[in-house]
Amino acid sequence: MSARRGLLIILSSPSGAGKSTLARGLRDWDPTIRFSVSATTRPPRTGEVDGQDYYFVTDETFRRQVKDGEMLEHARVFGNYYGSPREPVARSVEIGQDVLFDIDWQGADQIARSSLREQVLSIFILPPSIHELRRRLIQRGQDSDEVIEARMRKSWDEISHWQGYDYVLVNDDVTETQDRLRAIITAERLRLPRQPGIGRHVTKLQDEFEETAG
Amino acid sequence: MSARRGLLIILSSPSGAGKSTLARGLRDWDPTIRFSVSATTRPPRTGEVDGQDYYFVTDETFRRQVKDGEMLEHARVFGNYYGSPREPVARSVEIGQDVLFDIDWQGADQIARSSLREQVLSIFILPPSIHELRRRLIQRGQDSDEVIEARMRKSWDEISHWQGYDYVLVNDDVTETQDRLRAIITAERLRLPRQPGIGRHVTKLQDEFEETAG
Repeated sequence: MSARRGLLIILSSPSGAGKSTLARGLRDWDPTIRFSVSATTRPPRTGEVDGQDYYFVTDETFRRQVKDGEMLEHARVFGNYYGSPREPVARSVEIGQDVLFDIDWQGADQIARSSLREQVLSIFILPPSIHELRRRLIQRGQDSDEVIEARMRKSWDEISHWQGYDYVLVNDDVTETQDRLRAIITAERLRLPRQPGIGRHVTKLQDEFEETAG
Repeated sequence: MSARRGLLIILSSPSGAGKSTLARGLRDWDPTIRFSVSATTRPPRTGEVDGQDYYFVTDETFRRQVKDGEMLEHARVFGNYYGSPREPVARSVEIGQDVLFDIDWQGADQIARSSLREQVLSIFILPPSIHELRRRLIQRGQDSDEVIEARMRKSWDEISHWQGYDYVLVNDDVTETQDRLRAIITAERLRLPRQPGIGRHVTKLQDEFEETAG
C-alpha cells in the first residue's frame, strides 16, 4: 500500500473559460480523482442534485460550520456562501486520493494557507480572449444581459489573481490543455517529497548493496 | 518570440540504471533539447568524438578553466576531471533552449547553487535492484571484475545522494519512465515563473476587458 498523501488539485478560472469540460476530462482520464463537493446557501438550479452538485444548506448551518472550523475554505459570491467541507478532503489526503477543487481565487488562497498547503497543486485556466469569454456566457443562454455583465466583472476580478497559482494555462485548444493538465498532475505526483515509496526503495537497495558487497 | 528561459535538466543515476537510453529517448521526443557536452581530462575511448561525446582537454587547460570560472560545475571521478562549460549553457538559457546534463550528484549540487539555479530541474534515476545494476555492468563487457566492484561502490555513493533531487524515478519499465520524464519536463516548462508569455496574455485580456466594459 502506498503511503502517498493525496493532492489538492485546485482548478480556478473565470466562468466560461472551459473549466467544467477540463474537470470532466480529468475524471475520465483518472477516475480515482475525487471531485470536492462544495456546500452552498444558494438554492438548487433545475437538475442539480444535493450531495452531488452541491450540499445545499441554510445560511444558519453554513455559518455554524464555518465557526466550527468545518470549512477548509469559504467565500461569499453574488450574495451566497460557498465552501469546501474539510473532513472528506482530509480523509482523501490521508488515503492518498487526489481531490479536485473547482473554486475561485479566494478559496484557493485560503487552502494555500491551510494545514493541507503542502498538498496543494493550483492551476489557473485563462480564456484565449475576453470576447470568447463573453461569447460563451451568452451562448449558455442562462442569464440576462445584466447578469452577464456582472459575471464579466467577476471574471475580470478572478483573472486579476492569476499570479497566485502554480501553473497558468491559456485554454486555446481544449485537447492541448487536457494534455497539459495530465502532464502537470503526473509530474506533481512524482515530486520527491510526495513519494514516500522512494525512501523504502532506497533502503531495499542499500540492503542489497550491503549483502552483495560482502 | 518567446522570452522563456531554458531549463537545466539534470539527469543523474548510478551507471547501469538506464540513463543513456532515457537521455536519447528525450532527444528523440524533443530535438530542441540540447545535450550539454562535458569537458574531461580522461583519454577518449574508441569511437568517442571530441566536441560531441566530450571535449577532451589536458589537465592544465581544465584547471585554468575552473580557475577562470568557465566551468558551471566540475568533479574528479576515478582520477579524471569532468566539468560542464558555462558559456554554451548560459547562451541556451537566454534563448529559451533546454539543456540536458548527464552528471553526477556533485555536479548537480554545484549547478543547484549556481547563478542559474532558478532554471534547474533535477531528476534522479534509480535502478529497480542492485542485482540488476550489477548485471547490466557485467553485460556491457567493458570492465574487469575489479573495475565493476569500484563502479558498484561509486554507484552506491551516487544513490546515497538521491534526496537532493526534485524528482526520483525507479526505472523499472523504460517506457513508463520515458512517459514520466516527458510529463515532468512538459509540466516544469509550464510552471508560472517560467512562462513570461502569460503576463503578456493577461495584459491583452485586460485591454479587451476595458474596451468592452465601455
